[in-house]
Amino acid sequence: MLSKNHPRYLSLKYRHALENGVKSGIVTPTGMIAHGRGEALDYLIGERTTKNAMKAAEAAAALLLLAKRPVISVNGNVSVLAAEEIIKLAKVCDAKIEANVFYAPAAKRKRMIVELFRKKGAHILGRISDAKIKGLSSERANVSKEGIFSADVVLVMLEDGDRTEALKKAGKKVIAIDLNPLSRTAKKADITIVDNIVRALPLLSKKANTLKRKNIKQLKFIVKKFSNKRNIKESLKIISKAASK
Amino acid sequence: MLSKNHPRYLSLKYRHALENGVKSGIVTPTGMIAHGRGEALDYLIGERTTKNAMKAAEAAAALLLLAKRPVISVNGNVSVLAAEEIIKLAKVCDAKIEANVFYAPAAKRKRMIVELFRKKGAHILGRISDAKIKGLSSERANVSKEGIFSADVVLVMLEDGDRTEALKKAGKKVIAIDLNPLSRTAKKADITIVDNIVRALPLLSKKANTLKRKNIKQLKFIVKKFSNKRNIKESLKIISKAASK
Repeated sequence: MLSKNHPRYLSLKYRHALENGVKSGIVTPTGMIAHGRGEALDYLIGERTTKNAMKAAEAAAALLLLAKRPVISVNGNVSVLAAEEIIKLAKVCDAKIEANVFYAPAAKRKRMIVELFRKKGAHILGRISDAKIKGLSSERANVSKEGIFSADVVLVMLEDGDRTEALKKAGKKVIAIDLNPLSRTAKKADITIVDNIVRALPLLSKKANTLKRKNIKQLKFIVKKFSNKRNIKESLKIISKAASK
Repeated sequence: MLSKNHPRYLSLKYRHALENGVKSGIVTPTGMIAHGRGEALDYLIGERTTKNAMKAAEAAAALLLLAKRPVISVNGNVSVLAAEEIIKLAKVCDAKIEANVFYAPAAKRKRMIVELFRKKGAHILGRISDAKIKGLSSERANVSKEGIFSADVVLVMLEDGDRTEALKKAGKKVIAIDLNPLSRTAKKADITIVDNIVRALPLLSKKANTLKRKNIKQLKFIVKKFSNKRNIKESLKIISKAASK
């Protein structure tokens, strides 16, 4: 067993969870590569939530609270790494959760994700796809009518740029959690939290809990004063500084 | 089939090769995470060989030519990504190749690596381990007496820091190819080439071919004037600049 005193305990814990995910089939081998990219970028920002990410999380929490039909989209990696934090956040923001995956076998993997959440006491969408998001090839297009299809705000994590773009074109506001500030997802989203999901999700719940006391006008002001472009620039500066140390 | 015109053709080609490697068992799921870390760092240096990496490659080629018993150590990822380039380099430098892996099942995976090289016409060591490198737990310690155990210079790629340290303690010169200039391997090696192995290996062959015309004194001078510390610092600067763009 891995000792909690190991300097890389958390990092190794998440790795093991994903390895088991590959064994069961809920995570794809390509999902492991994506995780590795995240590891390297997380390392560069110091494996901590930056002040900058906190600002983005505050704006995101406000946007989620303002949403009429918020949906949290989850894939295989997200489910394995942070199902409980997702469930918590969905409760705080009164959001739906929907399984949506990139890689085949999609139907089987979505079933596994739905089942994983069911075991943790949450009923999520995605098992039945009865609507389509335009402009997307493959399985990512297939969504639930009462979920992502009707959503006004969608929270995506560890996602591909095409999908973020298609959701935007479908008139939705997109919140992204993405460790790569240069990714298309990061650039295309309305609000991008440059942080590891295992830190950003509990932070979002906490921020949403605090912001619940604010009125709509105050929440709208928080969203309005946030500039994603400026925030991404700041995140790039942080990575740049870390690399030059 | 993947089109060669796809902007990410090469990146996707290597990903597919590794995915197939996971299916066959020669690559581990954790090896996929390592590849992802490399992808992110390669992206930051612009997916090109920097002038800085060229300098390191020149010093490395000189050191390989000066070596009496050079060995190229290969793991699962390396074998899948660059077996042919390894074979070419081994020929140019008159080096042995040895399979050495971190993750279980080690004996089986080393057999698969030896077989992969055999099919490409190269006989490599690693199937039989009849010696040990001190100070290493697990399978990495088990080496071939006529290979890594007796080597004076070892070229390692996509490696763990412990092993580089143990090889150094065993009195060997270590050349590393590592996209992370902050890794322990990068810091502990005598010469670190901060580059993707698929670019660095052909570059090493080319440099070695050119340097073959030089005499021993000239080669020694090239190695002597190279400072790994300074070179790593330069690589960090390049990453820092890329991130701040």
